Amino acid sequence: MTVAPKQLANAVRALSMDAVQAANSGHPGMPMGMADAATVLFTDYLKHDPKNPKWADRDRFVLSAGHGSMLIYALLNLTGYARPTMEDIRNFRQLGSPCAGHPENFELAGVEATTGPLGSGFATAVGMAIAERHLNASFGDDLVDHRTWVIAGDGCLMEGINHEAVGLAGHLKLGRLIVLWDDNKITIDGSVDLSSSENVLGRYDASGWHTVACDGHGAADVKRAIDEALADPRPSLIACRTIIGYGAPNKQGTSATHGSPLGGDEIAAARATLGWTSAPFEIPADIAAAWAEAGQRGASVRAEWEKRVAAHPQGAEFSRRMAGTLPVNAAAAEHIAALLADPKKVATRKASEDALQALTAAIPEMVGGSADLTGSNNTKTKVQAPLTADDYSGRYIYYGIREFGMGAAMNGMALHGGVIPYGGTFLVFSDYCRPAIRLSALQQVRAIYVMTHDSIGLGEDGPTHQPIEHLMSLRVMPNLDLYRPADAVETAECWALSIEKTDGPSMLALSRQNLPQVRTSADENLSAKGAYRLRAATAARKVVLVASGSEVEIALGVADKLEAEGIGADVVSMPCWSRFDAQPGAYKADVLPAGVLKVSIEAGTTIGWERYVGLDGLRFGIDGFGASAPAPDLYRHFGLTPDAIAPKVLAALNGN
Amino acid sequence: MTVAPKQLANAVRALSMDAVQAANSGHPGMPMGMADAATVLFTDYLKHDPKNPKWADRDRFVLSAGHGSMLIYALLNLTGYARPTMEDIRNFRQLGSPCAGHPENFELAGVEATTGPLGSGFATAVGMAIAERHLNASFGDDLVDHRTWVIAGDGCLMEGINHEAVGLAGHLKLGRLIVLWDDNKITIDGSVDLSSSENVLGRYDASGWHTVACDGHGAADVKRAIDEALADPRPSLIACRTIIGYGAPNKQGTSATHGSPLGGDEIAAARATLGWTSAPFEIPADIAAAWAEAGQRGASVRAEWEKRVAAHPQGAEFSRRMAGTLPVNAAAAEHIAALLADPKKVATRKASEDALQALTAAIPEMVGGSADLTGSNNTKTKVQAPLTADDYSGRYIYYGIREFGMGAAMNGMALHGGVIPYGGTFLVFSDYCRPAIRLSALQQVRAIYVMTHDSIGLGEDGPTHQPIEHLMSLRVMPNLDLYRPADAVETAECWALSIEKTDGPSMLALSRQNLPQVRTSADENLSAKGAYRLRAATAARKVVLVASGSEVEIALGVADKLEAEGIGADVVSMPCWSRFDAQPGAYKADVLPAGVLKVSIEAGTTIGWERYVGLDGLRFGIDGFGASAPAPDLYRHFGLTPDAIAPKVLAALNGN
Repeated sequence: MTVAPKQLANAVRALSMDAVQAANSGHPGMPMGMADAATVLFTDYLKHDPKNPKWADRDRFVLSAGHGSMLIYALLNLTGYARPTMEDIRNFRQLGSPCAGHPENFELAGVEATTGPLGSGFATAVGMAIAERHLNASFGDDLVDHRTWVIAGDGCLMEGINHEAVGLAGHLKLGRLIVLWDDNKITIDGSVDLSSSENVLGRYDASGWHTVACDGHGAADVKRAIDEALADPRPSLIACRTIIGYGAPNKQGTSATHGSPLGGDEIAAARATLGWTSAPFEIPADIAAAWAEAGQRGASVRAEWEKRVAAHPQGAEFSRRMAGTLPVNAAAAEHIAALLADPKKVATRKASEDALQALTAAIPEMVGGSADLTGSNNTKTKVQAPLTADDYSGRYIYYGIREFGMGAAMNGMALHGGVIPYGGTFLVFSDYCRPAIRLSALQQVRAIYVMTHDSIGLGEDGPTHQPIEHLMSLRVMPNLDLYRPADAVETAECWALSIEKTDGPSMLALSRQNLPQVRTSADENLSAKGAYRLRAATAARKVVLVASGSEVEIALGVADKLEAEGIGADVVSMPCWSRFDAQPGAYKADVLPAGVLKVSIEAGTTIGWERYVGLDGLRFGIDGFGASAPAPDLYRHFGLTPDAIAPKVLAALNGN
Repeated sequence: MTVAPKQLANAVRALSMDAVQAANSGHPGMPMGMADAATVLFTDYLKHDPKNPKWADRDRFVLSAGHGSMLIYALLNLTGYARPTMEDIRNFRQLGSPCAGHPENFELAGVEATTGPLGSGFATAVGMAIAERHLNASFGDDLVDHRTWVIAGDGCLMEGINHEAVGLAGHLKLGRLIVLWDDNKITIDGSVDLSSSENVLGRYDASGWHTVACDGHGAADVKRAIDEALADPRPSLIACRTIIGYGAPNKQGTSATHGSPLGGDEIAAARATLGWTSAPFEIPADIAAAWAEAGQRGASVRAEWEKRVAAHPQGAEFSRRMAGTLPVNAAAAEHIAALLADPKKVATRKASEDALQALTAAIPEMVGGSADLTGSNNTKTKVQAPLTADDYSGRYIYYGIREFGMGAAMNGMALHGGVIPYGGTFLVFSDYCRPAIRLSALQQVRAIYVMTHDSIGLGEDGPTHQPIEHLMSLRVMPNLDLYRPADAVETAECWALSIEKTDGPSMLALSRQNLPQVRTSADENLSAKGAYRLRAATAARKVVLVASGSEVEIALGVADKLEAEGIGADVVSMPCWSRFDAQPGAYKADVLPAGVLKVSIEAGTTIGWERYVGLDGLRFGIDGFGASAPAPDLYRHFGLTPDAIAPKVLAALNGN
């Protein structure tokens, strides 16, 4: 082939500016600026097979600067992926097109991660690179031997999460992670100089990265930089000096090309500048052929790899893990049976550790960690050695004080496949990693968040550490199952459900303080229904008390007092709203029947509980911030005790 | 005085270990490790006057490593602040004591910021340093000439927000910010080596900071480092090499001293090691006297400053700003009157800009900014020049792609006083700065968040950028007033309310898309009630439609269709839940009367709207993630149009 790299890149530029123009919406500047470097990567380096996009040993490519989505859509189309078709690209940003405004992993094979929230893609790629090394350490070079590539912009590097991702990658010496930084000196507001004076390469150097700069528009120079990166054992940042909107003669180099169509006149001028004479969405045959040929580089490599997997003694196990199917085991059931035989009063964070002992022993793909709260989150089990730069086979990651970085890395591990990641912090610090949790949910990945110290029950650490609004703020997030188990049995049940859910994240909100075991049987996983009648009224039922987690014990105490007065009171444990909402109407009506007073008890905001207790129900909780004191004092202070609640329920029944 | 610095510091150590022991809860390691450096700071450098703790020109001190709260409680007590008393310290971490587990700005004068969530205090201090330079530029050295000091730990430096704070401070050359880093090589999980390999000083160097290291236990060496920092025009990081739990002979240098009482035996051993013979909570007279004398250093300086303020032509204006009282002006009212005279169909983000034009012209203490979305958030007004390292008098900050850093900086500015900060990003990225928003609310500061692109109405950018759960997740946060205005008049009203609220943050959720002006009168600020009847039914009322923001237009369209069928329908605009909840019961019952079908319409999660429409009401919204398409297509796709909603309301009325 004699097509020059610049012409290959111009195909990307043309598609990008034309698609944005057709949509009258989008970001042409970044794909036009990074077209040359991305072309080098996709034609000469990236190990992939467009006809088999889920090949387990493919290189992962993450477009962290997701607003430049046309870059990846063009690259996938040109290298021969089944989708996006040119019709898909014509429908860029239209309802039903897989070519969404930002790349979505669930829309297109080849889009390894959903990106757009700046910095998140980069940090997700760190998790992919961890998963690769971990699986390599477990299965060897024959099965796992690939790289993770990232294209990131200034926004990705300026966000706080970048510091966490860079620190983690540098510490773990993830040498197979190579980041191409679109160093175009432009942000939305204008020149980078408006807001940053950082020596970016200096910062990366300080975190144990290899750094190199190149002319992002010179294919040979980009190759030189990539070759240098490949030869270095450290993770690499390649500063690709580029011109945003390269090729648009009147607008390039300015933020005007960032987030708006170029306009017909400027596109015409760009066509002239680039020497691009084809109609919109048409690629000259020689250029198309050269791209197609580049897309076929990996096919034979993949075929050889398939043979190795078939012949490998661990090939089946590797394939099982990558498919995300669990090993056949009875770990959870046996653990629950043992709990029933020997009831314990333990904090649910400790009950979680006990469940994890059983699960991690039975499920080798579980990789745990904590954002520097290992002993408090109870996330490390006996079978887990640390995953370190010296031994990637470990199954426990000391993430450091990096909650957001941890969440993003978990997403990356789950997206990579072969690993079921879980990680812990305090529930109140779910705020720190909330953007990662949202991306877990949006990307439909099995990442499991272990959030301990889930209420004022943590006591003396006070309002900065006491979740109030967090349970509710997480329940409203789509596709996240938030569990707040009441005892050790429910904790084990919720862990089993979390592991079994393959298409979205789960979160366990766990107590610091000890809780009695309230469940005495487990013929079925009752937590799976989201809520269930834990104790039925003995007298005529006039009240249903609904509670979650540590407040189930309180609800039982309230019920005792009511029943002593001859008032029948059901107690419903509700560990998971989203699962309860998914139950049949008849089940829900049975658990929460009409015509009786319904009362919610939860040590958090009461806003939202109208959903289950109605406007005529009672809601006990905390609608301001917490306070610093021993937990029992706080429960009394906030009126969350049987002694405080029972009289109010009686008064309501009496019409007062 | 002949008391050695080490003995002064030992008073801090003794109080810290004894208070933690008495509480049987807390963190002795950090205060014991940093006692020597903090003693140098408080005895020789910090400009403050404990008898006048709100002195406007005092140095600000932020204990970013807030878990070491006993450090600041001891320092405040020893230097002569009225609180905490020794009795307060004896009651460390008990209900009612101002000595909470983590320092709370609303509990104690001298605690400048609420800290504990790691990294936030440091980033808040950046805002204080910005406010100082800004006011200095406006009022001169005679009135404003102070420093901001921070003590931070490894956690503060490892968190992502540190990158944002460091980048912002370095870019703005905040040379009056000096950070003492407790470089003790220990995190909760163990050695820092477990999770980090960073060259911290190298990173700071790369961001334009001055860096210096010292022996954190040698008073003379700490002084040398501080003097070097004072002489350098850049912000400074002083690495104080320390031993965590210094003085506890068997546990020092280990994470065992971090978050648990030392225990009686180890405390006895520490007393022997330190040569401390006093009973718990008793300070030897000579040491107490030396501390008291150190606390009096600032009194005469303050007295001279008071005289300068009294004599200064701008003294009254400076005092007004620092007091947080607004200038007398009619800017908001005049702006609203103009809107009524000339109704406009504009996006509420543009309406916000229009309101800001009036407000920023009238209120000189308003300092705006955006996290690199200035043109999208519409946050910059004509009167605002950029605040830069070359000109701190500017009133607009290009925060860069640093949402969390922006929020924390706003908190710092508000806590410093003299500035009313506001800042913008997209609503979906409220997740990125959520921990800062929570600290705005907890710290009761007037920080105003301008969150545009508040729904699927932003269109093609797709699900990563479309808020779904955000409105509800923010409404449940205590002490945050979330406003979602429906048109230009409501936007102006909500801005006026946000400016007037002095004891907590406000947030405006604003549309990208144009909205018709629905308000035709403004005899009073109706948004102040949180919700109000925008249009009354003309036929017999059978339905009340409740909506916020951009969906009010849709509710009006539904009402038109219902009224055309002879069904009377009120339309209630509900810009602010928290304000509506605070209204008298009679008002609420009038706006949302019993006995009629109530229907909520909002382009976000429906969970939570039961609060106003009840279990028998209808809730129209979106409970999954959004999609990428033009906004009108999305509204149709998600069934949020009068055509889609009206038939369902009719069906419900007919019992179907």
